Amino acid sequence: MIDPPSLVDQYCHGVLRTELGLGTFEAQLARTEGPPAPGTTLFDTQTGFAVRRWCPPLLGLEPHCPPARYLARRRELGTVEAGRRLLRGSGITAYLVDTGLPDDLTDPDELARAGQAEAHEIVRLEQLAEQVADTSGTVESFLANLAESVHGAAAHAVAFTSVAGLRHGLALAPEPPEAGEVRGAAGRWLAARVAGDRLTDPVLLRHLLWIAVASGLPLQLHAGLGAPGARVDRTDPVLLTDFVRATAGLGTDLVLLHGYPYHRHAAHLAGVFPHVYADCGAALVRTGARAATVLAEVLELAPFGKILFSSGARGLPELHVVGAHLFREALARVLGGWVSEGAWSLDDAQRVATMIASGNAARVYGLS
Amino acid sequence: MIDPPSLVDQYCHGVLRTELGLGTFEAQLARTEGPPAPGTTLFDTQTGFAVRRWCPPLLGLEPHCPPARYLARRRELGTVEAGRRLLRGSGITAYLVDTGLPDDLTDPDELARAGQAEAHEIVRLEQLAEQVADTSGTVESFLANLAESVHGAAAHAVAFTSVAGLRHGLALAPEPPEAGEVRGAAGRWLAARVAGDRLTDPVLLRHLLWIAVASGLPLQLHAGLGAPGARVDRTDPVLLTDFVRATAGLGTDLVLLHGYPYHRHAAHLAGVFPHVYADCGAALVRTGARAATVLAEVLELAPFGKILFSSGARGLPELHVVGAHLFREALARVLGGWVSEGAWSLDDAQRVATMIASGNAARVYGLS
Amino acid sequence: MIDPPSLVDQYCHGVLRTELGLGTFEAQLARTEGPPAPGTTLFDTQTGFAVRRWCPPLLGLEPHCPPARYLARRRELGTVEAGRRLLRGSGITAYLVDTGLPDDLTDPDELARAGQAEAHEIVRLEQLAEQVADTSGTVESFLANLAESVHGAAAHAVAFTSVAGLRHGLALAPEPPEAGEVRGAAGRWLAARVAGDRLTDPVLLRHLLWIAVASGLPLQLHAGLGAPGARVDRTDPVLLTDFVRATAGLGTDLVLLHGYPYHRHAAHLAGVFPHVYADCGAALVRTGARAATVLAEVLELAPFGKILFSSGARGLPELHVVGAHLFREALARVLGGWVSEGAWSLDDAQRVATMIASGNAARVYGLS
Repeated sequence: MIDPPSLVDQYCHGVLRTELGLGTFEAQLARTEGPPAPGTTLFDTQTGFAVRRWCPPLLGLEPHCPPARYLARRRELGTVEAGRRLLRGSGITAYLVDTGLPDDLTDPDELARAGQAEAHEIVRLEQLAEQVADTSGTVESFLANLAESVHGAAAHAVAFTSVAGLRHGLALAPEPPEAGEVRGAAGRWLAARVAGDRLTDPVLLRHLLWIAVASGLPLQLHAGLGAPGARVDRTDPVLLTDFVRATAGLGTDLVLLHGYPYHRHAAHLAGVFPHVYADCGAALVRTGARAATVLAEVLELAPFGKILFSSGARGLPELHVVGAHLFREALARVLGGWVSEGAWSLDDAQRVATMIASGNAARVYGLS
Repeated sequence: MIDPPSLVDQYCHGVLRTELGLGTFEAQLARTEGPPAPGTTLFDTQTGFAVRRWCPPLLGLEPHCPPARYLARRRELGTVEAGRRLLRGSGITAYLVDTGLPDDLTDPDELARAGQAEAHEIVRLEQLAEQVADTSGTVESFLANLAESVHGAAAHAVAFTSVAGLRHGLALAPEPPEAGEVRGAAGRWLAARVAGDRLTDPVLLRHLLWIAVASGLPLQLHAGLGAPGARVDRTDPVLLTDFVRATAGLGTDLVLLHGYPYHRHAAHLAGVFPHVYADCGAALVRTGARAATVLAEVLELAPFGKILFSSGARGLPELHVVGAHLFREALARVLGGWVSEGAWSLDDAQRVATMIASGNAARVYGLS
Repeated sequence: MIDPPSLVDQYCHGVLRTELGLGTFEAQLARTEGPPAPGTTLFDTQTGFAVRRWCPPLLGLEPHCPPARYLARRRELGTVEAGRRLLRGSGITAYLVDTGLPDDLTDPDELARAGQAEAHEIVRLEQLAEQVADTSGTVESFLANLAESVHGAAAHAVAFTSVAGLRHGLALAPEPPEAGEVRGAAGRWLAARVAGDRLTDPVLLRHLLWIAVASGLPLQLHAGLGAPGARVDRTDPVLLTDFVRATAGLGTDLVLLHGYPYHRHAAHLAGVFPHVYADCGAALVRTGARAATVLAEVLELAPFGKILFSSGARGLPELHVVGAHLFREALARVLGGWVSEGAWSLDDAQRVATMIASGNAARVYGLS
């Protein structure tokens, strides 16, 4: 009864183009610091079990079939055809795609065609800055080109995204850095840099955030789970509180991605600040059979008009599928449960489901 | 089967006396940093949905009716009559009322009459100090008058409450400040102060805590959610650990209010320290349909003799209603579930329900 | 349908040998900073209720019988016979026993005989160091004897355990201390020390961790709940992240014990680092009727091959019983629920149940 008609995946990546063996497929199921321990496999995780539940039927197999059998069928169909069947079985009608990963993944247009859906680009600030650095000779040209690139990206992208939390932690000074500071940091970075070096300088990360804020485009901030070996408490969204306050009233929306295991904190910020939104999707792919609970925890404090679905998928179309199915099922179970207890009316539940699945994203990102 | 016969609301405020339109009513549903985002409303929150569930029937309407219809009916009855019907429908038999807000809210006697219940005063330490500062000319007279005011309040109030956590954060030095420090801080504060200025100096906040501890009256400490734009981690009750240890054995009980999203930490302190109690109510009003889970999380570590119900309601009698109904229902569902699983006996469940609903509060606050 | 055939309790202690009265029994139900508050009892806790649920039937009484009746029956049988009946009713087939408590508790052999089970020793590093200090005259002999003792213990023990988190907090410098630092810290500690003094020096605590890591034996680290009056955030396993990274690839497994209320953080580390494992047992004894939820929270991020059962029991055989029964029941409810929702296959659920109950522990600790 509670089944939103369409899903906007407000944050994901493209998929790998290559054939995948059992080991290379398994390695995409989680972000880890090394191969699985002897005697263990990443298929024995919530994500692995969720993939085995939802994906085999889309390729003509029974749910929960063994990984080797699934991979054999996937190879039989070929990466392209398997990807088409999976993406078209996800129910996702629009993908917002972060194109800023170094991996060779399909671009938004390819994802759109494969999935028979819309796709829009999200520009990753740090990667943009690294590209500009690769082609700028001086500090002055770097900063000018960066400003121009952000301006240019704002014309075609639907959002910016920042991984400052994963690169440095979210305990960043909340105010914009002074121009002199920025020039100094840029000079040091460019001087020490070899092509391909990643941007981790906190002054430049803050500079990027503030030029993105000035663009008016929604700004997505990674929080919670992300860089596997880093201290997860350094990405607690509560650390963004002062930055959030500093950006209030400027007309730019902030979207807190992921959040888990601090998703209740992200929901709190979405409840307090008019310009803050909370993601409720990427954590579901990680927590699988627990998706309903994790979703419900976001629904405690976040106003229902401030919650956005995403899959956070990367590399495997299976992750888009799992993100979408776990979300739909969790939403139906959580909201349906509240309806059957009498806590919510059915009308309200259906209205809220549509808001979270697509309506809020359409409003925030200006989708038609 | 599990339905406590009476409820002591161990922490709430009075209600507004004025007629409320849709917008002014909505603004009371949450503490935020600004008006709702375009396209969103605070009615679309757990609190908003809970109000629409529980309150319309008390005014003769169907549950979940639209906000505009509810507000129209409320105006038709008038603020006073609507308030009477709501409060009398809450099942609350005693209100402990924090009178220290600047808003024009009904006082404990008015609340008692409207709700046909008992009411007792909780004195807010910071507001008491601000009132004393308004009428004291020198540091010496300020400190003497403050001591006398606390002493006087202890004679008629049932508890003190401190918002030191919301004003400064709970990372306060745990020991009492030295007399010289207090005089210095008081001097600086009084010299810089204009009438109405709020007390935020950490030395004076600690001084207040310790003169309250010396009074022997239970001391309620705000923790977790509270000041909307502040960093919520600064009110994690774990930050009170050293203060709690410093006050052990002095004969004064400490009550940790709210706690969410750190309510498991508050429950832990209530489990470890004989003089610490945990509130389990105010978070329910905020989390609505999730109340049973949040209550159950408090019930993990807090001994059942150390848990107290409150509504935390402020401004709207609807919030007293919602607090009471969500609590009763959550209690029945959580404890009833444990009984039906065989984990608890029915006798134990009924006994614990009565303790949390009223018995513990009666013992801690010396109610008859 | 989901009922693992055997249980390895990967972390527990022995039991008291003395007869216990109502008060001495009650005092074993929780670690607190003082006797229960007036009007309250530690029987009115999740642990107390779980003991009353699971243990009376093993002694021929009805579940939930009053504490006084249970204690009378226990005395009637005698401590030894009651202990035998309880331990044999727990379903635990192997106990890994931390022998490093000062209390007079049964040793692993006695526990094995009483419970008709295997038992293996876990050596507590800090206690080992204290014993060595009691018998070493100089810094050089202390450090040499310590190295030899750890080496010797590694030959017969199945694991080391460290309570550095409870003694100092887990915010320890991640790298091994320099030899000169260690000698300096040892000199200061030995000079100031009187026999029986506990080791709390952070340099020596780190030295112990690193000589244990060098032994190759699994190293258990206490995290989360533990020292009752200490700040629980100082034992958040997230604080171990840098130490975990520093020990990656050295061939020594790390097992995070307890974890609650930060068990999601422990599960995250177990998911990211191949050599990290997460305990899922001790928290269940503390949270009783909430065990299924707490277990499910661990199952969100921890790979299923990285989760280990323990009771964490100490002093009372009732706690071994409760640990085992709560775990089995929680496992059956959580995994069974996922099977009935279609999220997991029954085969997978049974396989994972066996892994967590005993298979993972057998592999990590090299049990036959």
